[in-house]
Parts: sequence; structure tokens; C-alpha cells
Amino acid sequence: MQIEFRSDLGAKVLVDVPDERALEDTLRKYGRLGWTSGEVPPGGYPFPYDNFADFDWSLIGARKWTNPEGDVRIIHRGQAYKIRELEAVDSRKMTLPAAVKISRGAKSTDPEHVREKADGEFEYVTLAIFRGGKRQERYALPR
Amino acid sequence: MQIEFRSDLGAKVLVDVPDERALEDTLRKYGRLGWTSGEVPPGGYPFPYDNFADFDWSLIGARKWTNPEGDVRIIHRGQAYKIRELEAVDSRKMTLPAAVKISRGAKSTDPEHVREKADGEFEYVTLAIFRGGKRQERYALPR
Amino acid sequence: MQIEFRSDLGAKVLVDVPDERALEDTLRKYGRLGWTSGEVPPGGYPFPYDNFADFDWSLIGARKWTNPEGDVRIIHRGQAYKIRELEAVDSRKMTLPAAVKISRGAKSTDPEHVREKADGEFEYVTLAIFRGGKRQERYALPR
Amino acid sequence: MQIEFRSDLGAKVLVDVPDERALEDTLRKYGRLGWTSGEVPPGGYPFPYDNFADFDWSLIGARKWTNPEGDVRIIHRGQAYKIRELEAVDSRKMTLPAAVKISRGAKSTDPEHVREKADGEFEYVTLAIFRGGKRQERYALPR
Amino acid sequence: MQIEFRSDLGAKVLVDVPDERALEDTLRKYGRLGWTSGEVPPGGYPFPYDNFADFDWSLIGARKWTNPEGDVRIIHRGQAYKIRELEAVDSRKMTLPAAVKISRGAKSTDPEHVREKADGEFEYVTLAIFRGGKRQERYALPR
Repeated sequence: MQIEFRSDLGAKVLVDVPDERALEDTLRKYGRLGWTSGEVPPGGYPFPYDNFADFDWSLIGARKWTNPEGDVRIIHRGQAYKIRELEAVDSRKMTLPAAVKISRGAKSTDPEHVREKADGEFEYVTLAIFRGGKRQERYALPR
Repeated sequence: MQIEFRSDLGAKVLVDVPDERALEDTLRKYGRLGWTSGEVPPGGYPFPYDNFADFDWSLIGARKWTNPEGDVRIIHRGQAYKIRELEAVDSRKMTLPAAVKISRGAKSTDPEHVREKADGEFEYVTLAIFRGGKRQERYALPR
Repeated sequence: MQIEFRSDLGAKVLVDVPDERALEDTLRKYGRLGWTSGEVPPGGYPFPYDNFADFDWSLIGARKWTNPEGDVRIIHRGQAYKIRELEAVDSRKMTLPAAVKISRGAKSTDPEHVREKADGEFEYVTLAIFRGGKRQERYALPR
Repeated sequence: MQIEFRSDLGAKVLVDVPDERALEDTLRKYGRLGWTSGEVPPGGYPFPYDNFADFDWSLIGARKWTNPEGDVRIIHRGQAYKIRELEAVDSRKMTLPAAVKISRGAKSTDPEHVREKADGEFEYVTLAIFRGGKRQERYALPR
Repeated sequence: MQIEFRSDLGAKVLVDVPDERALEDTLRKYGRLGWTSGEVPPGGYPFPYDNFADFDWSLIGARKWTNPEGDVRIIHRGQAYKIRELEAVDSRKMTLPAAVKISRGAKSTDPEHVREKADGEFEYVTLAIFRGGKRQERYALPR
């Protein structure tokens, strides 16, 4: 097996993986260096809500960071994303469970298909959304 | 031989396949984990109508899922698609056999070339269409 | 050597080829299953006019098909293309030899850069054009 | 080492190269068959002016061709490009050395980012530009 | 391990790398020839401010060049970029540390997603920005 990474310097690198069990360890190992594999899916990586608290950000090449003002951010490919808690919605129109959304404001160099419209003219880009689903141990930080 | 997959975490992974006969087994094995290879063709995967009843969704990295309201959906790369039965059309303008269409409403992050126009302003995205053709055993669930 | 194919199920598959002489045999072998390698060039594959009569469609993953009405079509990646004979043009404005064009009407999911404008609002997509040039034996059906 | 080529039939082929010194010989060998590797850079391949006279077109999968009217053209991926000599510009606004530009009129199937605007509504596509720089022997036809 | 490069002639070349420690040496070795791996990230490569003075441009396939007028430029894939020093901003609206921006005016063949808007109708393309962060020795020229 081989994984294709984009290194922190943007280089395309193919890394050998001995077997399937070593796959996620390899993603974690290089993810800690800021390396990523593949693209963020449109609308962001979907993860279960119960995986947020101890999510291992290295799995997607991201990391937690506390800025000088003391706010926690998620850093991914040099961009800082905010952590937003979305309350559950239970109206006549729709029912949505509570979620945690990792997103940032859009920049002029973001391609059209990653921008999502919000109120007014504001556009944002989502890295991940933790909503519903069933907790998966393999997404958790190793203890 | 090697197959290039996108894993459930979006990683690009090359998997070795010993020979041609093992190709579809490999697609099924990793497809069961939500891994996909290549892109959904424009207009959706075309399959024969008679393959719908026992189609093995793992071949394209998808799976059947019943939502809390009891409706059956097809899940593919984190998106839920509805199953729509289209009646045969036999008018002066065109003749079309009955079909089953697997589709969902378009989202703002779907690229232009996967959106299809329906009545009014509604746009949708098709994962697969089962129409005409001749049943192929290799698409069926293993017994 | 390795050839990168898109299988009939859309999977990205790398196939080993022992040497250069085996290259076209490998294209034919998998092309017979509807596998393709690379993209159709903008404006369609250009082939010599004298190769049309006994062209081996498996070279580009296509095949001849006669529809229920008795019309011959070329099937490529699940789409049916018509065969159009274009007469030679010899006007003051331009000189063009006779040609055979393999094309179909454009669909809403065809990307912009494969659509060609015709009279009025009609748009079409070209798979191949056989015009001029010198017959190449290697494109012919094996006898 | 491996080079990824697009063959004359559009197939994606990976070719092994024993070592770095063999790299350009491999490009020439397959380039002679019309195979190319990678994309033409936006604005065309930049080469030194003094390399034009004996440039080895096989390095980029192109070849010289004389049409029935006796005009020399450069053929690249099935398209014919004209050879245009541009005089040096030395005005108050800008200083540009003499150049040779290899270009053709744009077609409706050319993607937006390869089209360059000229006077009026005319658009063209550039394959290569020979301007300034210092002659490099490795671009020359082998003697 | 393998790195995928775009050579100075635009060819796609896969180069073997014995182990992880050799990765950056390989980027430097081929970067010196103008080879690059991957794409410039939207908004340019982000580097720490304190790495500008002795940055090793070969890491991203670029090089310093002094033009006939005596101005220093950074050459990357045949394009010349200017070096702009941006003063620190400390207003009520935002706080930004001093930075060095490597950028050039946009050309008609630059794709939409690399263009950044400046005052008026001017658009530019950024190769790299050195701002904030903590110096990393591995980005420095070898002594």
C-alpha cells in the first residue's frame, strides 16, 4: 500500500505503508507534521458528534492552537479555523441534532466550490462538522 | 495491478491487487469501509435495470441505510441519496424504459458539472441510474 | 511500464505492461471491457480518414452497437454517439477534406470545455473525427 | 525514476527511467511519437531566443510539418501552430527583446486559462515563446 | 518514498527517495534545476518572518535573480516575482506583524483562484509570504 501526501511544503510524496493496520498510524505520524492526503470534502469532513472532545486532529493533518488572545483555533494547511457550537434545531421545517462546526471566513483565493453562503454577503469555508452518528474509537487521541 | 482509492477519511491510497480476478473483490472489500475509486460519472453510474433489486452497493463505496423515519437511503461519501422509481415513458417525443434513479438535492458546495436541472429552480445530483440493459451477475450481492 | 485506466465501474486502476510492444495490446484488451485511459482530447480524438472503415474501437475503450431501430452507434463510457459523414468543403473561405465525425448532443452535466456550438443553441460533444492524414495500420482491427 | 506520459492515443502511461541522465533521452524518444508529459505552462513553454534555430521539438512531444501550401507549422497534440517572429520593442513604455512565438487561434473547446486576448475579439493559444535568456545546448537537436 | 516533480520542461517525474531524512535534500537538489512538487498554496507559501533573510529558495524550485536594472527578483516556473516589505499594522481594526511578500502582477492566463485583488482593478499573484511564526532552521540555506 502507498499513501499520497501533500507535505507541509506542498510537495506530492508517496509513502509506503506495510499493511492496512498501519494506515491510520501513518496518517497520524505525517499529519503531526502538517501533511495531508486528499482534499477536504465539500462541506467539510463529517465526523460523529461524540468524537469532538478527544478528536485526534493529526488524522487530517490539522492541530489545535491557542492564539495570543487565548482563543482555541484549528490550524490546517496554514489556515486558522474557529470552533463553533451549533445548538440543536427542532422546528416544523427541520430537525437537526447539536453540532460542532470548524470553519473560517472565505478568502478571495478560495475556489467557488468550497465557499458556503451565510447571512448577507458573508461566505465561509468548513473544515469539519461533528454531528449525530456514533462515536468511533479510531478517531480518538491515543491514550 | 494497483487501485487508487479515496479512503473514508479522504486519503489517497494505492492498494495492490494480485490479479484481474481479484479486482472486484478488492473494490467490494474497501467499498464496505466507504472507500471509493475514481469519480461518479456525470449523470451518475449507469447500471442495468435488472441489477437494482440485489445490487452490491459496496462496489461503488456506498451502502443502504434506513433513517429514523423508516425511509431507505443510499449513503455515499457522507451524503444520503433517495431512491426514485421512474415510470416508462412512451410518447410521440420519446420512448424510455422504466428506471430507478438514486439522487439527492444539490448543495451549494456541489460543483457545477454534477448538478442537473429539474422543474423550477430545483437542482439535483445523481449517484446512479438503473435503466434498460441486460443484468450482469457480477454487480449482484454475493450469495 | 504502467497504464492508468478508468475501469467500466469508474475505478482508477494501474496495470503493468511488460514492454512497449505490449502497450497497444493492453489498451485493446481492457478497452474491450469499456476501460479507458486519459481523457478524450478537446474536439475529439483525431484519426486519419482512411482508418474509419476498420477502426478498432477497443483502442479507446469504445464499441459499435446497433440500437433497436437498427442505427449504428458508438458507445463510450455509457454514452451513445452518432456517426456523421461530412462532405468535403471547397469554397473561397476554406478547403476541408471529407470527414467522419463521431458526436452526440451535449447534456447539462457535460463540462463547458467539451461542448461545441452548432447552428442555433444546439451544442454537441465529439468523441472522434476521421479526416485527412495517412492510414495507420496499428489502428485497424486485428485480422 | 518514472515519467508520466500522455501517449498519442491519450493514454496515461508511466515509463521507467534508469537514471537522471536518461531523462531527456526518454522525453525525446517518446516525444518523437507525439507523447507529452505534463501540461503546456500558461503563456507557453519559455525557451531562450538562441535555441529556436535548432530546437529539438521532440522534447515537448511536438514536430515540424510543412503544409500543402508550403508553410512550416509546429504540430503538438494534433493542433497546428504558426511560427511568428516578433520584433524587439523599445519604447518609453517598455523594452522587450526580439522573440519567436509559436501560437494558433483559440478554438471553442480550449479552456479559459490558455486563451490570450489579442486585438479585437481574436483569442490565441501559445505553445512556446523563444525570447532573451542564454542558449542551452541540451535543447538542441542531437548532431 | 517517492516525490512527484514537475521538471523545468514541465514533465511529470517520480523520483525515489531512500528515507524521510533525504526528503528535503531531494527537494533542494531538483529545486535547484527549477523543478517543483505540488502547487503553490492559495495566497502563497506561508513561511516565518525570521526565515526570509537566508531562505533557501531551492526548497520550492525558485531562485534569486538580479535583473539588468539591478533589482532582485525571485524566479519561479519562468515568472519573476517582486520582493515587497509590508510594515506592521496596528489599528483599531486589525493587528498584523511586519511581513515580506513575494508577488507579481496577474496575467490573463492566470487561473481565477490564484488572483488577489488590490486597489482599483489591479490583480496580483503571491508566491510566498514571510510573516510572524517562529524561525525554522530547516528552511535556511545550508552553511
